[in-house]
This record gives sequence, C-alpha cells and structure tokens, in this order.
Amino acid sequence: MAKEKIEPELVEHSGLGRVKLDFSPSNQSFKVPPGVSVFDAASWNGIAIDSTCGGHGTCKKCKVQITEGIVPISRLDIRAFSQEELKNGWRLACVARATENLAITVPAMTTRPKAATVGVGRQVILRPAVQKRYLELTEPTLHDQRPDIQRVTDGIDDLEVSVEFEVLQKLPTILRKNNFKVTAVIVDNLLIDIEPGDTTSSRFAVAYDLGTTTVVATLLDLNSGTPVAVKSMLNKQQPFGADVISRISATMLDATALQRLREAGQSTLNELTDEVIQEAGISNLNVYEVAVAGNATMIQLILGVDPEPVGVAPFITATQSWPVLNAKEFGLAIHPQARAYVFPSFGAYVGGDIVAGVLASGMDRDKRVRLFIDVGTNCEIVLSDGNTILTTAAPAGPAFEAASIKCGMRAADGAIEVVKISKEGVTLQVIGDVEPQGMCGSGLVDAVAELAKIGVLDQSGRFVSQEVLEKDFPNLSNRLITLESNEKAFLLHGDKEDPLVFLTQRDVRELQFAKASIATGWRLLMEQLNLNDEDIQQVLLAGSFGSYLSPASAIQIGLVPKIPVMRIVSAGNVAGEGAKMVLLSQPERNGASALLNEVEYVELSDRADFNDKFVLQLGFPI
Amino acid sequence: MAKEKIEPELVEHSGLGRVKLDFSPSNQSFKVPPGVSVFDAASWNGIAIDSTCGGHGTCKKCKVQITEGIVPISRLDIRAFSQEELKNGWRLACVARATENLAITVPAMTTRPKAATVGVGRQVILRPAVQKRYLELTEPTLHDQRPDIQRVTDGIDDLEVSVEFEVLQKLPTILRKNNFKVTAVIVDNLLIDIEPGDTTSSRFAVAYDLGTTTVVATLLDLNSGTPVAVKSMLNKQQPFGADVISRISATMLDATALQRLREAGQSTLNELTDEVIQEAGISNLNVYEVAVAGNATMIQLILGVDPEPVGVAPFITATQSWPVLNAKEFGLAIHPQARAYVFPSFGAYVGGDIVAGVLASGMDRDKRVRLFIDVGTNCEIVLSDGNTILTTAAPAGPAFEAASIKCGMRAADGAIEVVKISKEGVTLQVIGDVEPQGMCGSGLVDAVAELAKIGVLDQSGRFVSQEVLEKDFPNLSNRLITLESNEKAFLLHGDKEDPLVFLTQRDVRELQFAKASIATGWRLLMEQLNLNDEDIQQVLLAGSFGSYLSPASAIQIGLVPKIPVMRIVSAGNVAGEGAKMVLLSQPERNGASALLNEVEYVELSDRADFNDKFVLQLGFPI
Repeated sequence: MAKEKIEPELVEHSGLGRVKLDFSPSNQSFKVPPGVSVFDAASWNGIAIDSTCGGHGTCKKCKVQITEGIVPISRLDIRAFSQEELKNGWRLACVARATENLAITVPAMTTRPKAATVGVGRQVILRPAVQKRYLELTEPTLHDQRPDIQRVTDGIDDLEVSVEFEVLQKLPTILRKNNFKVTAVIVDNLLIDIEPGDTTSSRFAVAYDLGTTTVVATLLDLNSGTPVAVKSMLNKQQPFGADVISRISATMLDATALQRLREAGQSTLNELTDEVIQEAGISNLNVYEVAVAGNATMIQLILGVDPEPVGVAPFITATQSWPVLNAKEFGLAIHPQARAYVFPSFGAYVGGDIVAGVLASGMDRDKRVRLFIDVGTNCEIVLSDGNTILTTAAPAGPAFEAASIKCGMRAADGAIEVVKISKEGVTLQVIGDVEPQGMCGSGLVDAVAELAKIGVLDQSGRFVSQEVLEKDFPNLSNRLITLESNEKAFLLHGDKEDPLVFLTQRDVRELQFAKASIATGWRLLMEQLNLNDEDIQQVLLAGSFGSYLSPASAIQIGLVPKIPVMRIVSAGNVAGEGAKMVLLSQPERNGASALLNEVEYVELSDRADFNDKFVLQLGFPI
Repeated sequence: MAKEKIEPELVEHSGLGRVKLDFSPSNQSFKVPPGVSVFDAASWNGIAIDSTCGGHGTCKKCKVQITEGIVPISRLDIRAFSQEELKNGWRLACVARATENLAITVPAMTTRPKAATVGVGRQVILRPAVQKRYLELTEPTLHDQRPDIQRVTDGIDDLEVSVEFEVLQKLPTILRKNNFKVTAVIVDNLLIDIEPGDTTSSRFAVAYDLGTTTVVATLLDLNSGTPVAVKSMLNKQQPFGADVISRISATMLDATALQRLREAGQSTLNELTDEVIQEAGISNLNVYEVAVAGNATMIQLILGVDPEPVGVAPFITATQSWPVLNAKEFGLAIHPQARAYVFPSFGAYVGGDIVAGVLASGMDRDKRVRLFIDVGTNCEIVLSDGNTILTTAAPAGPAFEAASIKCGMRAADGAIEVVKISKEGVTLQVIGDVEPQGMCGSGLVDAVAELAKIGVLDQSGRFVSQEVLEKDFPNLSNRLITLESNEKAFLLHGDKEDPLVFLTQRDVRELQFAKASIATGWRLLMEQLNLNDEDIQQVLLAGSFGSYLSPASAIQIGLVPKIPVMRIVSAGNVAGEGAKMVLLSQPERNGASALLNEVEYVELSDRADFNDKFVLQLGFPI
C-alpha cells in the first residue's frame, strides 16, 4: 500500500530560538520552535482548527489563511486550493511549517471540538491517534471486484490508512460474516483491526507513569477524553534495588537479571492494566493504544535492553527516540495489535518522564521564566527563560526518599510528613494520624528547615552547642541528644531515655549534600541563561515527592531559589499527565518530539566548575 | 526516529497513456507511465545514474539536468543544488517525476555500476534493497554522549534509515562486545540488524516462484548479482488438489484445511531454502530478503488468508498489494528480521506470478505489439499495443496439464512430448527415451495439431470416417480405433488389440474447449485495442508448459494468433525471473508497483459476448 504520508521535518531546524505566530480572530500570539506545523502550534495552544485526520495531510479540512509571512506551497496545497486561494495565502495548516513569524487567520469551525483539561492547566483538543469508523459497505459484484481491503479503505474517506498484515489475514472472513457492516480501528493512520458491527462507542487507551518506585496506570475513554479508572502500585522491580543504579548493578552481576527485571516491570504494568479495565468494566480488546512515560533506565529495563552503558560513565542510552512499538513489547494483554508510544528522553538521566512532564506543564509554551525540578534520587531540572530551555540531571542520592536517613521511612502510615519547630516546641503531622515511627522526605526537609530557621542548626548545618541551646532555646534543650556513636541528634518523638524518632547530624549532612547537588544544577543552568534568583517567576515541583514538600522549607534549605513562596507550585504527577495528553491528542505527541530539538541537555559530570559550585551550595542560604 | 521518506506517488496519474523521455548523451528514448521518477525510468531501461541509496532521496547523488520539459523543484532539490543549478534544470532523478515529455542529460558515472541480465534479455542495474555498511565507530565519551543508535546512523552517511526495535534491543551489547566495529544491515532503508565485525561480503536473498504445481527457489548473491543455487520441487499442497479451485474447495469443506495448506506451502519453501543454502554453503542468517511470485490463491493460502472469495463469483481477493512482510509469515528459517516482498496481483486470476512475468519480459517497456500467454489450468493473457496494456484470465481447465485426458500424464519419463504425423506414419519423442506410457500437454497439442493439419481431424475437430481414412490415409488406417465405449480414438502407441496410448474424440473436445477459452480471451483483448492477428509482433509463451509447447502446433490449433512461427517465443520461467529482478534492483520493484496502474484488468466472466465468441473459437483455424 503505497500511501503518501507527511513526515515531520523537525530535524531541519536547529532547535533553539522561536518564531512568533499571531492567530486571528482570537488575537492570540505564541512563540513556537521553527519548523512545527501551524496545525500543531494552534492545537498546542488550544486553538481549534477543523480536522478529522488529526494533522496527517489526508482530510484536507485544516484550511487557514496566512496573512503575513511566507509559507511555501506544498503538493497537498495544490490539490486542496485554487490558484486564486493559494495566491491569497490559503494553506493546509498541517503541512504549513512555521519557519518565520506568521499571521494566521483561522476560519470558524463547522463543529465544536471536544477538549479536556490535562497537566498543569493545559487545555487539550481531543484528537486521539486511535480512530474508529463504522462502515456499511456495498457487497462485491462482477462489476465491482475491488479487493476487500480497497473496499474498506475507500469507505474511510477522510484518512489515508496503511494496513497491518494481521488485518488482511482476517479481512475476507470478517467482512462476509458481518454482511460488510464493520468498524475499522485505526491508530496513527495504520489500520490495526476490523471489528464486527458498530463498535465506535468503545475506544480506550492506557497512560502509564512508569516510576522507579511507583507505577500509575490511567484508563482513558478516548470518545469523551475522560479518565475512567486510575490505579497505582509499587514497581515490582523493587527487590532488585530501590533506585536505577542498584537495578543496573543487578543486571551487571547476574546474567539472568535483565530478563527478570523485564518480566517484573511487565507484570507491574499488566496487573495495573487488569485493575483499571476491571474497574471500568470494559473489554481488554477495546484498549488500542498505551503511552509509557519513564526514565531511560526504566524504559530500557522493561524493553529488555542492556542498561549497563546508561549506568556507567559516559552514560549512554540505546536511543533517544523509540519507534512506535506493539504493546506486546510491554507484555500487555490488551488488543493484540495495540500500539505503544514511548516518550523519548533528553539524555541518560533526563528521561521520558521529564519529557512528559515538560509537555504537561507547558514549559515550552510560556513566556515566563520557569524552573522545573523533579526531586528524587536522581533529580531532573529544566529551566526556561521563555526562549531557551535547558535541562540537566543532578545526582541527589537517597536522602529525599529518606532511605539513608537514620529514622527515615517511606511516606506511609506512621511517617512524620510535616514538622513545625519554634522556640516553644515541636509540632508533628503524621501520616494516618498514628504514633510516629519515622520521618519521610518532606518531614526531613521540614525538620532541617525549621531548625535552620530558628538557629538550632547554624548556616553551615551544624547543631549549636548544648550551652547555646539551653540559653537560647530552653524549651527545646532536652531534645538535643547524643547518640551512643557520640553523634548529636535532635529528638522529634520519644525522650532522651527512649528516643524514637530523631534527626542526626549525619542526616543533616546527607540532606545538605543532596540539596547542594540539586542547587548546583539549577544554578549552573541559571548562569548559562544569565538569570538571578529573583528572575524566576515560577518553580514547578514535580513528582510525588514534590507534591508533599513544603515550599517554605524548600526555600529555607536552599533547595530552590530564594523567591516569594507563592511562586512555588506543586505540579503533581506531570509524567502521568503528559502520558494522558499524547493519547488524547496527536498534535501534543508531535509536541513531545519537538521538545527534543527545543531543549538543550547540559551534562554536569564533566564540568570543571561543578565541585566549586557544589561546595558553595552546601550551607543554608542566609 | 522521524525520518523523511519520499513515497512513490504513482496513485496520482490515471495509469493509461505514457510520457516520452529522451536521454542524452546515450540518445535513447523511452515511453514510461506518467508519474514515475526519472531515476526509475532510467534504471528500468539500463541507463545508470549515480546513486548509493537506490532512489530513496537520501544520498543526493542522482543529479541529472532536465533540458526540455518541466519538473517542479522539490524540497530535496533545494538542499542538493544552488539557485543557479536549479534554474539550469538540475534535479535529483529520484524525486523528479516525469509528468510530461522530458529531455534529460545524465552526467558520466563516477563508478561503473554492476548489472545483471535477467528475465527476457533484461539488463538490470544492481541496486538491491538489502545494503550493508561496515562501521568503525568512535567510542562514546562524556563529550560525545550520542545514544548508540545515533552513533550508528551518523556512521551511515548515504542512507536515512529507520530502526527495527529488535536492533535497539541488542545494540548496546553488540557495539561494546565488538569495540564499536560492526556491520549495519539495511533492507529498504530499515535497519534490521547490527552484525559483529565486517560482514559486507555476505549478502544473500532468495527468489521464489510459488507455482500451484512446482515451486522454484533461487539463491542470489546480492554482491555480485548472480544466482548461486537453484532448486525446485513439487508444491506440498498437491494432496489437497492439483489446481487452485480444488485447493480452495478443500478449505471450504474442512475448517482445518487452510492452516494445513499454509503449513504445507511453508514447508515447501523452507525445504527448498535449506537446499539452496546448503548447496551454496552459506549461513541462513545471511539471507536478508525474499521475493515471492505466485498467483493470488497461492499467496492467500500460504499467508493463511481465507481464499473462498477468490474461488467463487464475484472472485474477490483480500488485497491487490501486500505490505512488506517479515519472512516469518512464510515460515522461513532465515535471518529473523528478513523481509518478504510479495508481488501484487492484477486481479483474482491474474496474480503476482503474472506481474512478475510482465516485469521480467518488459511488456511495459517495448513499443512492439506483444501478446503474453501463460498456459495452464487457468490461463493468463496480457496484450500490449506499445501504449495500452490489457490483461485477462481464461479458465482453460485441466486439458493442458493432460489431467482430464484419457492417456494423459504429467511431463515425466514415459510421456510423449512431441508428435509428428504425416500420411506415411507417426513419429513420437518420449521423455527419458523409454517406452511411451501416456502423453503430456505438449504431446497432446502436437497430436491434435498434426491430425488437424493433415485432415484426420476435420475443421470442427471430428475424426474423419473410417472410409475416408482408408481412402486418403491408408498408412494410418489401422490407427483409428473404436473403444469399448463406442468412442473413436487415434492410436499413438500399441496396436488395435492392445492400445497403449491413444487420443480419444473426447480428448480432442477437451483440448478444443481449453484452447477456445484462451483464444476467446486474447481475441476480446485484441478487439478492444483494434488489433488483427497480423499486427501481433511477438507472442511470449510463459510458464513451464509454454517452454515445451511447439509454436507451430499452437498456431495450428488456434491457441495463438495466426502469425509467422518465428514470432512465437518461449519466455521460460518469467515469474521466477521477475522475483530475482526485484531482489537485485529496487527501481525494478517500483516498476512492479507501477504496472498496477499501467495494466488494465478485463473481467471476461460478465461479458455478454463471451459465449458467442467462444463458440466461434472451438474449431481449428483454416
């Protein structure tokens, strides 16, 4: 099936720098990376342009008029417009590449498009890659001997589809068993199935946030754009290690580990998938597409690709982008021809989860100076000044997951998650309102921040002496204890005789190292863009840890730049939101690919100035 | 991997009618279907244009100058040429579509291309879809963190490849095990493997002629373009029936038959493949591509597609063209990612074997009026007047395979294959020079032709009376016998008391029906193009039966038009030759696709005038 397909030509531009698009009659202006299509640019910014094919150059409905700036006439334009219209600047928005500033008039829509709010307040126009068309075909005669597949594709007049072999294999049988009344299932212009009768009301996809610790699956109804079930569970790869480095090490020590890690990851996804499907009461065969957002190591592990080169210097991934895969590669028991979209990665330690997060938070579609921080064992940082976007990774170690902390624990029942300390005393907030058993990452950050704020920790991170404490903080004086190891610690729960939960001097140092690594990361990016703390208009704290972290405490310890606390926003699970977006909208998927050219990856591990900067960040800001 | 790919736009033109291309400095002119690329048109006619990518628009070497006629400037041209050069008509031949008459200057080649003679004297420039590139890559560093796959694709500078998932899966391991010295294996711009070290000297493909009766496999060395081993065997589907209709019936009677037929077909191909690989002494893993030429039923059976709609009116195939398949679909134990090219079909009864045959015989690249006839149970006919090409199928029945003939047998030892009859007596030529046991198709045609020529059969096909025989043919008079069934027969071997091999009146009728069906076919096509017998400049007899048939006898019984015998040519196994051509040359493969738009399929079964014409063809020409 030789079919014409318009491929994105994003490789052609350098990536950095933007062009400005002025849309009327809505009077909206946006800067976009040069080379993107006018259709995608409009879709990304919530401007609806007529289309049934989702921007593939087949339906020829996305007509716009270019009133300023030049867009060359494409072969498709010649077929869609008269000479007069072409002269007046009419173009198909899906093939019109914005390579310079343009003014664009968008005709009124004939139908009102569905939209959904996803990510950080992003309005996404519903244009899923998964499409269905119910066909009532005329039966063949000696005067109409079109082959079966041609009869089907002729019936799909607004899409030019290519055909999966498995469809050809069953086609003669299924057409005749159903009197030529069937539903075509198309994913991204590939015909993946022909179903008996009219099944257009059942069209589902699953978005996965494949975290090292936690995995979340969201089942989406693609007809309405709404999530119908969400489930999460711990990644079953946990027994191989808590973080990516320990899992990579596992594969290096044991030749069978990679396969077992793959199976554990697949089993995690599959179990979640079964759960969301059961909760929604739908058939697994009506799930036609999935999207997977995960870091580069998680993706290589679940796809059975040796992750060793990712784990050791010079930190090399197998690929930046993945081809569209069959969902079978993830071991999923859904439609046998279902497709899997895997987010590309910016680098070995800024993976597809961050690409998804940047997409969901619209980092590239905003003139504000914004800093995106995903705090974890490996911390990913993205900085945009409204024109240039930089990203890097900072190895923070396990402190924020409280794994290397004496009384640290996962954020579960019994974990201290909020700590308030004044001269008068200590107030704790405990998950599950039970007796405290330890503290999780946010509790740790709070404890250190509060102690630093009142001065129980000095600017260098050292506990004040017992004498100073008794003098300045008499109500807290019995909380500073000395452990058997002769190490100082601050008591949060229990008493001197029976200290139950406490913060040691070493814990404070652990946190200092972690936050200094992160701060060095964003500070180096800010230097590259000539930005000061006060220039930052928004800090997005991503990931589950980011949701629980107290913004005030984050500022207090210097984890984020010193800015008004209102400018710090918890972005939530943006990786999962990004995964939902690419399933709901093909233009958004193109946006994810476009990010690879827009965002510059900065490698810190070979920076000569890293260590000097790092030492400067170890203390607490004054 | 978003890569730009130039798709053939053959769908755009109506198919009928040609444009004329004048090539200099070779001073050659050719007519080609409008819409084909200048590169393909040149390649098809043996004119070599520089290229390493085989016409995919990536190597930018196929520069030609258009000196007359207009070819629009493409995006690729803009990148390949200066403004001045574009103004002077320089274009890349692979993207230059010939939509009107053109004059084209082809620069001298920098290297001399390899070529092979294939098919009916066709000179094919060696441009296989299978390519290899030996790479010695620099190892990654912190200053060069390109992902593994990018390092590989950057090393392949003349091709833009997309990547098979299985390659990504093994890539990190194989690169590091081999110190980044590897060979990339590419099929039609898809990277299907990375092999350790330099394997460029091993590059093979297998061409299959998948006949209903006989299957032939040819192993090709793609570096030299030469066949290194050829094997043939009977199709193992034989137990399900001798012809396509009986095999289709088998699937209708037994639900398990389709799967068993599929396996029998696969087993046939696999056994032949093992044989050619063993004979050549190569590894099965070095076979990267196969091409399969077969009729529509054979292809659907071996791919497990229900053939019932092909077998019953209105005779509908699942598809005209097949996507590029993995060779696994044919059950082949060769390279696990090897590709399979399946010839498209003109119609339900003019299949891929005929497309391959038309390609190999160059029916579309010749100004002569030519008639192509593949004689068999189902007879395929192609007629070209140098501009328009028509095709049809005529149901000849089993007479030519001698299956319904009283003393008929397959062309094996003991079969009479040549018969000479004069007033003086009968001379026989027997396969294997043994005692005659029966007659094969060519013997049958000879016997009837010779008897008609001398008048023992009258013009209507009836044996003359015993009286006439005794009077006019005294030396033959004891050969006309009467069987127990009271039917007349002519004795070829044995005597009246012990008749061993003879031709019955019913046999003659069987042959008359068969040849009348075929003759009605070509006569209707000739009428459509306003051609008389004497206009036909060449008749190509295709298939194994065509090779043995006596041209004089074919004329005598009216199987072919009445033309000088020298104009009748045995074309040999053109289906197999076509299969070899598409493996040796990508432009030729494009030529096979182009044929679908060039050749018009004429359905005979709904023609009101068919029966009248048929009756007129039953007798022997005077």
